[in-house]
Amino acid sequence: MSIEVLRRSIFQNNDRAAQENRSLLDERGITAVNIMGGAGCGKTTLLEHLIPQLRSDFAVAVLEGDLATTKDAARIAALDVPVIQLLTEGGCHLTATLVQEALARLPLAEIDLLLIENVGNPICPANFDLGEHLRVAVLSVTEGDDKPAKYPFLFKVADQVVITKVDLIALTDFDRERALRAIHALDKEKGVLTVSKKDASSISQLADWLRSHVSTS
Amino acid sequence: MSIEVLRRSIFQNNDRAAQENRSLLDERGITAVNIMGGAGCGKTTLLEHLIPQLRSDFAVAVLEGDLATTKDAARIAALDVPVIQLLTEGGCHLTATLVQEALARLPLAEIDLLLIENVGNPICPANFDLGEHLRVAVLSVTEGDDKPAKYPFLFKVADQVVITKVDLIALTDFDRERALRAIHALDKEKGVLTVSKKDASSISQLADWLRSHVSTS
Repeated sequence: MSIEVLRRSIFQNNDRAAQENRSLLDERGITAVNIMGGAGCGKTTLLEHLIPQLRSDFAVAVLEGDLATTKDAARIAALDVPVIQLLTEGGCHLTATLVQEALARLPLAEIDLLLIENVGNPICPANFDLGEHLRVAVLSVTEGDDKPAKYPFLFKVADQVVITKVDLIALTDFDRERALRAIHALDKEKGVLTVSKKDASSISQLADWLRSHVSTS
Repeated sequence: MSIEVLRRSIFQNNDRAAQENRSLLDERGITAVNIMGGAGCGKTTLLEHLIPQLRSDFAVAVLEGDLATTKDAARIAALDVPVIQLLTEGGCHLTATLVQEALARLPLAEIDLLLIENVGNPICPANFDLGEHLRVAVLSVTEGDDKPAKYPFLFKVADQVVITKVDLIALTDFDRERALRAIHALDKEKGVLTVSKKDASSISQLADWLRSHVSTS
């Protein structure tokens, strides 16, 4: 008699939903970007400065991941772009199933670029595929240049690393070369941009990188 | 015929180990403090400045939680206090079982105060009892004053909130009153200290708070 075995990876349901999300997004010609990084590293501020640079080229929508509150969605809504706040109610990362529910509510036919701000956490989000096409890891200079070595998973999965708050660098011990060495020790080809909300041209570099990846069919 | 039911909370093994840790610590007259906060909020720097103020009164030992690297343990070892690096290998919080293994390796008879720096994450650590007596939540001004509302669980469980990097406050949008209101909306009795590594007297306030809680039997 054969023994029945039930096997279920904790990622299985998530991965199935992620695959469905990616198929749906591809079908609609939408490029999705999963933006990850620790609490307060500047993800929402980055979006506030990035979206005005992108909106003349693309129709942008945003998903805002948080444990609680709609503060971040309110900041994005002020830019007059479609936004949905995803609340995990204590969960430490977004899931593909929550993103799937949000996709069902968005006007997909009118969207070219979907920016998904994950929960502020440099750890768990890196393990959960949402169905995105690109992953951005955000690191602020005030967090310290040791973080790529200490949170390697996030920086490994990222297609682009963005170092934020560089206007504060002189007031910190952050050493840009040391941070780059730590990132490139994980992946020597990894692209790294250094930005400040006070320098629009630095944000333009990230806008250009996104532009080069957005489907314009 | 009765139906057999197996029930196991994901917290059950952890809680049992936490209780064992607490009993062992109590027996040895050791006060343990679980220090939690996001990546780069200044937990290790706080310890570097706090320990020199405490060591004349107490024998201090440290457990350093991280996903990877022994960087933080090396910083504490430079102060010449016993330290063990706890690596979660990707895990987003310390567990009581990992702390239990560390306690078996520490010279408990020679320790009064055990400072446990959790993994840099403002979310999951708040859910896992390590067997500690006190919990400290750390928030840096560079993370933003919206974080207590956005990560309420951490700030609710904390016995003391410490706002760090206040020397940078003028360069940020951080509003101390707004942060205090958000913290006190969760718990109107919550103690909040505001510190900077550049102001030893601010660190002294935290040292005094710890002194008032350490068993000196």
